[in-house]
Order: sequence, then C-alpha cells, then structure tokens
Amino acid sequence: ARPRVGYFYSGKKAGQDLSESVMNMKVKDFQSIPVVVSEKVSVYDAIAQMFLEDVGTLFVVNEQSLLTGVLSRKDLLRSSIGNKEISKIPVHIIMTRMPNITYCFKHDPLLHVAKKLIEKQIDALPVVAEHENGLEVIGRITKTNITAAFLSLAENHDL
Amino acid sequence: ARPRVGYFYSGKKAGQDLSESVMNMKVKDFQSIPVVVSEKVSVYDAIAQMFLEDVGTLFVVNEQSLLTGVLSRKDLLRSSIGNKEISKIPVHIIMTRMPNITYCFKHDPLLHVAKKLIEKQIDALPVVAEHENGLEVIGRITKTNITAAFLSLAENHDL
Repeated sequence: ARPRVGYFYSGKKAGQDLSESVMNMKVKDFQSIPVVVSEKVSVYDAIAQMFLEDVGTLFVVNEQSLLTGVLSRKDLLRSSIGNKEISKIPVHIIMTRMPNITYCFKHDPLLHVAKKLIEKQIDALPVVAEHENGLEVIGRITKTNITAAFLSLAENHDL
Repeated sequence: ARPRVGYFYSGKKAGQDLSESVMNMKVKDFQSIPVVVSEKVSVYDAIAQMFLEDVGTLFVVNEQSLLTGVLSRKDLLRSSIGNKEISKIPVHIIMTRMPNITYCFKHDPLLHVAKKLIEKQIDALPVVAEHENGLEVIGRITKTNITAAFLSLAENHDL
C-alpha cells in the first residue's frame, strides 16, 4: 500500500472562495505515485503487478525509463481470456503505444485532466516530465484522484 | 453504446452560486444505466458482457431481478488468470455478495456517494429502489460520473 500523495490536500487558501479553489487545483496536488513495468515483462507478470500494487493502470517504460506504453485493467482482461500463453506474451504486444498515449504535466490544472479523462474515456493519465529523448513518468492521475479532489473541495468549504 | 444519463446536466439553476450547485447535485442527475447479469451466468460470459457494454462493473441479480452481487473488472481479472474453466464457473462463486455491497439511492447527494467510493475503494455503486423482498437496481454511479459532475460544475460556472 503506497501513500496516496496529496490525498488530503485542502485546495483552500486563506480568503479563497470555492471557484478560486477549483481553478487553483493542480495535478501535482492530487497525483498518485505511478506504477511502471518494463516493455519486456509478460502479460501474466503485468497482471500480477497490477494486483500487488492495487492499481487499475500500469505505465510501460523502455530501458532508459522513458514512457512507451499504457496498460489498463481492460487491456489485460481482454488479453487474458481465451489465451493460455499470457506468461509468454510481452506487454509491448498489447499495450497502447506512443504517440496514442494521453498524458499531462504536474502544473496542469486538474480540470483539464478531468476533461481529458472524460473525453478520451480513459481511467488514468501518466504525469510526465520532458527529457531530451522522451518522457519520464513522475506520477499518475486517475478518476479516483479527481473524485477525492471533488470531495476535499467540498469538505474544505464546509459543504 | 448506451446513453450516459445526465452527462450534460448543468448543476446550475438561476441565481445559484457554486457551493449551492455542489450541494444540490443528486445521484439521479448523474447516474448511468446499470448493466446486470444473472447469478447463473459464467465468469466467461460476464467478461464478454463487460466488454460488450463497455463498463467496469456488473451488478448481479436473482430470478426476481433483485440485487445479490457485484462484479468488478478486478474480480473478473483475478478469476480469469490461471484458470482455464471460467466458462464453467458461475459468477455467484466469485462476486461480492449482499450484505457486503455498498449502494445508494437516487435522491442521495452526489457528495455522499463520492465519499463512499473513496472510503470503500470501489469504482461503482448500484443505485437501488427498495422493494418488499429486496433491492431493485435502477442505476449505476461511478467515478466517471463524479469526474463528469466535477467538470460540468466548473463549465457551468465558467471556470
């Protein structure tokens, strides 16, 4: 059980009203720790990792630890039914790949991320930092984080 | 693709400020249509149904169409790995059963549901109506609905 970073962030500063609090909510204040796997691990091992870490999305990285793919619970469920060889299939065969990955940055407004999650019908986005050769995964933001943000907002404004 | 009921609900009435809008958000304004399966269907068929309907949670009902269980993507993924006989296992073997199911009613405040989803670490709740012999499933409320609600609130208050 990893700590849920920013879980109890108040979203409220002195003198701020509710609208200001909403607009000031940033990804970095609500993001969770990302769980990453290598492109070379098997679908079976990725599923095991997903249960071990109790997350719904895994991010796939190459040997330079740069983002190359995303695996959802749905992707893993799809590949595990009717397939007896999931310990022999590497995740890079079934993952969603760059450039089809939607991601965000730590200073992005939380509202923008909420919009992306809804529009793209996905459960989680990697929070990334740009490097010369690609994107480093530094966080994870999910509908759980958005739900927690919504809740903390209301609680901190005594709703 | 089923319609997402209440997806574009504004949450705003004339003269309401943001706090009032948040407090007036009810389950019925944001819930989705529930997807139910019989207790007798196999784990394999439940997985197929989940993909067909593109949902993350199925509700299980008995012959009187009353709620008896819940199946998450996680439950189905767990039972499908390392198990070749999922077309022979009925879902009632693996589902979360009453009385361990967290549910809500259509007039409940959305904030209370958000709190339950976070506290219980679950993805979806059935929206139910009470009957003499049990609970009828009339809707589904998920972290996607909460995320959409958060977004609609901000958009309708021009944030």
